Amino acid sequence: MNSFGRLFRVSIFGESHGEAVGVTLDGVPAGIELDEESFSKDLSRRKSGKRGTTPRKESDTPQLISGVFDGHTTGAPLTILFRNENTRSDDYRNLIVQPRPSHADWVALQKFKGFADYRGGGHFSGRLTLALVAAGVVAKKILNKKIKIESRIVEIDSCNNPDDFPKIVEEALRTQDSVGGVIECTATGVPATWGEPFFDSAESVMSHLFFSIPAVRGVEFGMGFEAARMRGSEHNDAILSPDGTTATNNAGGIVGGITNGNPIVARVAIKPTASISSQQVTLNLETGKPEPLVIKGRHDACIALRAPVVVEAAMAIALCDLSLIAHALEPKNNLSKNSK
Amino acid sequence: MNSFGRLFRVSIFGESHGEAVGVTLDGVPAGIELDEESFSKDLSRRKSGKRGTTPRKESDTPQLISGVFDGHTTGAPLTILFRNENTRSDDYRNLIVQPRPSHADWVALQKFKGFADYRGGGHFSGRLTLALVAAGVVAKKILNKKIKIESRIVEIDSCNNPDDFPKIVEEALRTQDSVGGVIECTATGVPATWGEPFFDSAESVMSHLFFSIPAVRGVEFGMGFEAARMRGSEHNDAILSPDGTTATNNAGGIVGGITNGNPIVARVAIKPTASISSQQVTLNLETGKPEPLVIKGRHDACIALRAPVVVEAAMAIALCDLSLIAHALEPKNNLSKNSK
Amino acid sequence: MNSFGRLFRVSIFGESHGEAVGVTLDGVPAGIELDEESFSKDLSRRKSGKRGTTPRKESDTPQLISGVFDGHTTGAPLTILFRNENTRSDDYRNLIVQPRPSHADWVALQKFKGFADYRGGGHFSGRLTLALVAAGVVAKKILNKKIKIESRIVEIDSCNNPDDFPKIVEEALRTQDSVGGVIECTATGVPATWGEPFFDSAESVMSHLFFSIPAVRGVEFGMGFEAARMRGSEHNDAILSPDGTTATNNAGGIVGGITNGNPIVARVAIKPTASISSQQVTLNLETGKPEPLVIKGRHDACIALRAPVVVEAAMAIALCDLSLIAHALEPKNNLSKNSK
Amino acid sequence: MNSFGRLFRVSIFGESHGEAVGVTLDGVPAGIELDEESFSKDLSRRKSGKRGTTPRKESDTPQLISGVFDGHTTGAPLTILFRNENTRSDDYRNLIVQPRPSHADWVALQKFKGFADYRGGGHFSGRLTLALVAAGVVAKKILNKKIKIESRIVEIDSCNNPDDFPKIVEEALRTQDSVGGVIECTATGVPATWGEPFFDSAESVMSHLFFSIPAVRGVEFGMGFEAARMRGSEHNDAILSPDGTTATNNAGGIVGGITNGNPIVARVAIKPTASISSQQVTLNLETGKPEPLVIKGRHDACIALRAPVVVEAAMAIALCDLSLIAHALEPKNNLSKNSK
Repeated sequence: MNSFGRLFRVSIFGESHGEAVGVTLDGVPAGIELDEESFSKDLSRRKSGKRGTTPRKESDTPQLISGVFDGHTTGAPLTILFRNENTRSDDYRNLIVQPRPSHADWVALQKFKGFADYRGGGHFSGRLTLALVAAGVVAKKILNKKIKIESRIVEIDSCNNPDDFPKIVEEALRTQDSVGGVIECTATGVPATWGEPFFDSAESVMSHLFFSIPAVRGVEFGMGFEAARMRGSEHNDAILSPDGTTATNNAGGIVGGITNGNPIVARVAIKPTASISSQQVTLNLETGKPEPLVIKGRHDACIALRAPVVVEAAMAIALCDLSLIAHALEPKNNLSKNSK
Repeated sequence: MNSFGRLFRVSIFGESHGEAVGVTLDGVPAGIELDEESFSKDLSRRKSGKRGTTPRKESDTPQLISGVFDGHTTGAPLTILFRNENTRSDDYRNLIVQPRPSHADWVALQKFKGFADYRGGGHFSGRLTLALVAAGVVAKKILNKKIKIESRIVEIDSCNNPDDFPKIVEEALRTQDSVGGVIECTATGVPATWGEPFFDSAESVMSHLFFSIPAVRGVEFGMGFEAARMRGSEHNDAILSPDGTTATNNAGGIVGGITNGNPIVARVAIKPTASISSQQVTLNLETGKPEPLVIKGRHDACIALRAPVVVEAAMAIALCDLSLIAHALEPKNNLSKNSK
Repeated sequence: MNSFGRLFRVSIFGESHGEAVGVTLDGVPAGIELDEESFSKDLSRRKSGKRGTTPRKESDTPQLISGVFDGHTTGAPLTILFRNENTRSDDYRNLIVQPRPSHADWVALQKFKGFADYRGGGHFSGRLTLALVAAGVVAKKILNKKIKIESRIVEIDSCNNPDDFPKIVEEALRTQDSVGGVIECTATGVPATWGEPFFDSAESVMSHLFFSIPAVRGVEFGMGFEAARMRGSEHNDAILSPDGTTATNNAGGIVGGITNGNPIVARVAIKPTASISSQQVTLNLETGKPEPLVIKGRHDACIALRAPVVVEAAMAIALCDLSLIAHALEPKNNLSKNSK
Repeated sequence: MNSFGRLFRVSIFGESHGEAVGVTLDGVPAGIELDEESFSKDLSRRKSGKRGTTPRKESDTPQLISGVFDGHTTGAPLTILFRNENTRSDDYRNLIVQPRPSHADWVALQKFKGFADYRGGGHFSGRLTLALVAAGVVAKKILNKKIKIESRIVEIDSCNNPDDFPKIVEEALRTQDSVGGVIECTATGVPATWGEPFFDSAESVMSHLFFSIPAVRGVEFGMGFEAARMRGSEHNDAILSPDGTTATNNAGGIVGGITNGNPIVARVAIKPTASISSQQVTLNLETGKPEPLVIKGRHDACIALRAPVVVEAAMAIALCDLSLIAHALEPKNNLSKNSK
């Protein structure tokens, strides 16, 4: 469904070519400084405009509809609206006839029996991540200032050298194709004790949010899949000091589903953009057979370029909710059992 | 927290060396044939006993405490209890002094200030997956009989050849070390339309459950991380026929967060068992400095050997909940919009 | 918090004198005919304008921001916005100094430490019921057409004669005072089997929603408090026929927390409007002592006059969610056990 | 469904004549002293044995299955089991043929199509309140010691004089009939700021739990239904001092859905026990027509006699969850806005 979180609750709504995309945040403590300007940095990081991203231009100005008064959050639900301006829905007229490969078109047709708003992907559009980024901005403000969450692209199309990324994207554009990538997100300054296993392990909550981002196909923490190829003697992180600092951080800051005070490290795999300009052959609903398809419209050759701030927002939202829960359920007894 | 699911709700409780481990299932439709025997096949697949798994022997007999009457589910909450029998808690006496590397000991101490049941890992023990497997058995029975969920080990310690796995485990035992592995889980016969994006995409719900399994460090669907290294033209799955069959299944049966009728394919990375018999050097809480530690007790040299049925259970639980939700929210209008 | 429901989820946001009041509905099946006109009847029933209701005039035009396309619901979240137009916030300038008796002013000050939007009651305003009524309209459309939900005022200021209500209200206006009332809400055509005890009994879910309506002080079902004064032999409803029809309906259509097919009957007590024009003596935050207060602004002398459609909406929302859950969890076995 | 609460989560399971009745509590902070003895006082208050209560005797010994170690809660889920001992299921053999009036028999038959455990009311039995009382004991221990929650019977069969209650019950027994009553529950020492409107007003959360108690037909707060008969000038509670003390407490300690620091007062109407010994005429499923029925088994002539501790438990559970949420969402800014 379209809400997530136990105390810090994020509810997303809107369509790519409808009136607006928006988000309502519940469980925002009162007294946090916030205005429209607070969102500009992260929103501009998500924006298109770079080579390899869609030429669709949107001002993406957040409207604070509720929950903010006199420059501070009020404790009431905070609704942020982004009006859609630059919509060219005619580009999508042929969707009903030929559902685009690896897009949600066909499943949406099945699930909603033709009633879904198909224009620009509707509610399935990557434009919905605008709402996620806005929620992330608020989450970061709720979290202690010492916590730093940072994302970067560590791989594009098998290449790990950031200097080579522009020419890879250029090549994808030239061949009317698209490329994927891997985003690494790190959070430092997160204290130990966040995470609520059995089911709400820190990894569970984060991965739930990561996999809600369109185009994400894999998620790993610490050494991730590589951990499966290590020996216990290599992978185990020896604890060095009473504050929990470990000699290595193969666990990526999470053990037993709970943060251990070391940096949290997650990696997220982004598939190549499904919309490519070159011709494909896929089902035509009228003929019932595969037919050639050329996708019109404006696309990102490498959606991963815009993903870092989205992944960051997802981690911030997860940490914010986990921090509120951990705070609420702290042991009642101020003295630890051992110190008695 | 310790419950998961919107309609089919799984609540897990218990500790490794306490009275029992158990699970309560809410949202189980009435009329499903079920008795203690129904659990035996999956429970025995999870059992230890093979080379490389712990010699701790438990009968693991499920007690149906509630929700079953006259051989059928009643529609009331179904509670299943597994009494702990073979507990040797003395093995764990030294836990308070030296938290084991890459175990939950240290984070549990911080989070619960010394009040957690530390014996055998307490509530963090892999023994809790017994409850997950039992829930999986019921989930599979609720799902349509045409759906087949199957798991297998596809990699142990970098090796993809199942014939070589025994000698790899043998080598790990010999060197008092441990190895990890990768589990692949496939579900066939799942209809299109399951999954509730934005937040409850099929991947989000499944990964939430996968990452609640102790030792899981990565989760991917379809081509997963490999997708990030493919071009759009390679990765896109062309739709071939009106039933949604695709030429390739790089998406692993899920597009836009919704099942598309093709086989669901997930892979889960399991880290090497944290408990190893060889000596480690790690924090001693009394001295405040790293000191040598030798872990006593009975361990699995390769926990991945016992994981396939657990991963399968997690997928079954996710699919069961998603199926109930999709059924409840089907379009009200029997005719699709296009057919009017 | 500001969301309610398991499958049909209602999320409310907004403030009385802010930008807007709104609601997002999740779990709305696709294919339901809906446009702005669909809301006009119920919204106009809630409107002020009659003698004894506030002279504040608002057009209350619903804006369908998302989830509707081409005159039908899409299955995506449905957001409805009501812009605030006729706000006279200057009337509320003195709120910070003297919290109004029996209003949320003082508790809001404590809870949100001065950050709440106090203008016109902010998020605590009765204006938020606009969102509830809009949600009720959609809920009624999801429910089977055979179900009729109807509300009426059965009591104003101790009087049970509707003909006398106008003069009672007139008298309250004349004396610068206010009066309360009792609303009875009935639903006919509701099938048996809705309600999910232990905790989500039909009464529990309905009362949860009823008590979220500002000014509600009591809720009862069937004979309600009067049932406590009856003998079992009088109160028991004998079942007359296989369809569940009972000789009497003292239970108000709900037995064991589950609907029994007979009309559902609930009564809701509405307190007299807290805002009265006559002078009161209450705490002045600056002096720390009770001081005289005269409340300016525009008020309802009898808020109960506008409540029937709100109570109706609450019942519709509850029934809608319960119907989706009951449908999802129906016994798997088509044959009942007894018929085998 | 069978769980309630956002942070302090109560999950109930079991049947009257099955293996056991039990409860799992999630969100219990670590470090609370607890053993089986902690439950004895409240459990004995719920027990039968007095004149007018069922002669069924159960030892009602709580078994702490998980979540307690070394005399303190661990922070892991706390499961409490009550084995059923004194079951005489033969008494209920005729249930399938003649569903008892005003019992859940008929709705359970419809909802679960004959698969429900009908013995002694199964999951619908008042015996399930044992689990609620046990949860209440833990909730009271989590709440600050200054908070006192107390319940008393204020009315039996229209009579308000406690001295007359024994003879009223005696008379009911003599005439093979049953009587109802009203319970008043008061909580003192509750601080202001608890309650999360719009939907989770303190009244909403409490009434949700009250109406989950079998036999409850009405719930009111403060003056309740009587408030509907008062003028605003009478009903408004003037605030007297900066700590929020009011001159009157017509609101029953809750304004705008949030506690205001004054005593919380709730009243709950309990219907007369549905099981009466005298003959009734009700549907016979075999003949399809109403036929005489005499209910065998052991019953309470006045279930209200055992209800006070159950109502108290429900209020404690509600307050416990609301306190954890309010604590988690406190304004971030230590200084209030006004004090800047």
